[in-house]
Amino acid sequence: MPTQHGARGQIRREEIVLAAISVIAERGYRGASLAAVAEKVGLTQQGLLHYFPSKEALLIGVLQLRERWDTGGRDTLAEPLTVAQTAAVVEANAHRPAIVRTFSALLGESVTEDHPAGEFFRERYRRVRRSVAATLRQEWGDRLPSGLAPEEAAPLVIAIMDGLQFQWLHDPEAIDMPAAFRAFVSLLDPKAAR
Amino acid sequence: MPTQHGARGQIRREEIVLAAISVIAERGYRGASLAAVAEKVGLTQQGLLHYFPSKEALLIGVLQLRERWDTGGRDTLAEPLTVAQTAAVVEANAHRPAIVRTFSALLGESVTEDHPAGEFFRERYRRVRRSVAATLRQEWGDRLPSGLAPEEAAPLVIAIMDGLQFQWLHDPEAIDMPAAFRAFVSLLDPKAAR
Repeated sequence: MPTQHGARGQIRREEIVLAAISVIAERGYRGASLAAVAEKVGLTQQGLLHYFPSKEALLIGVLQLRERWDTGGRDTLAEPLTVAQTAAVVEANAHRPAIVRTFSALLGESVTEDHPAGEFFRERYRRVRRSVAATLRQEWGDRLPSGLAPEEAAPLVIAIMDGLQFQWLHDPEAIDMPAAFRAFVSLLDPKAAR
Repeated sequence: MPTQHGARGQIRREEIVLAAISVIAERGYRGASLAAVAEKVGLTQQGLLHYFPSKEALLIGVLQLRERWDTGGRDTLAEPLTVAQTAAVVEANAHRPAIVRTFSALLGESVTEDHPAGEFFRERYRRVRRSVAATLRQEWGDRLPSGLAPEEAAPLVIAIMDGLQFQWLHDPEAIDMPAAFRAFVSLLDPKAAR
């Protein structure tokens, strides 16, 4: 039996989360089954439950992995990303369609009634709006060159990132996500060279 | 038996689409059943199939209704909306959370594999990017005051609209969608008074 804790257990948990990402990308969370995830990693469903006691626990594991990838595990409220690092997240996302697809599918599902990811996204948005505002304030102070306050611009930055992902997933040839994000940043600071 | 065609049939079809919107807002499309929609409008499932021969046909009906609400049925390529009319769509959306919720849930599901709405959204985005570019060109010519070309700014306008909807659905007290959209428009035209 593999151990649940320690380094080997940690690796196994990551393998399971990656398998879950690919199953959710295919079928969405509601359509995903623990059996399909277990099969991908060569476990029985019972074996899988040793690592994640429920489908919801696995969902949270998926969402947390995305967070770690975006932030490198740092506390972005205490130590905000720079604008350039935020653009680098968009650039990285353009090379990981499976996680972006999974995240976008979960975001869509999360607005339906009593979805287990609903609370996660509400809290995440609150936190990310604050940390993006901190990023903007660090870069430009209390007023952006365009005249917006950091708190006014933060929801727009997040909306652009989320919204572009849907257009890109549907039509990757038509949408250059990193270039579109840079075009948006140029709106925040019209004086910056493009 | 109600007729399928004519004015009464048309009214019945709209009632069914409205019922479908509320069922999808609760459970998503994959989780929605024709039986639940039929029950809401006092039809048997068999009776419902007289109006919409399949669940997918009903889905298309839902998506088309949203389009008609946004555009008033006009061909927005031949006759683009103005920027002010686009802002009015955002304002109207802030008063119809059920349709926004349904649309956002469907958008999320549509990125999963072989989803029946996938092709609809891909084509819709292509069309809407062109019609938003036409809106921007009509307002500002071949170069926006911010320096972007209409074709560069169009995906951003759409991303803002889609992205803000998710934040607003999760936290309506925290997000003033129309105000956030106006803030974005002020970025496109920094010289305009705010």
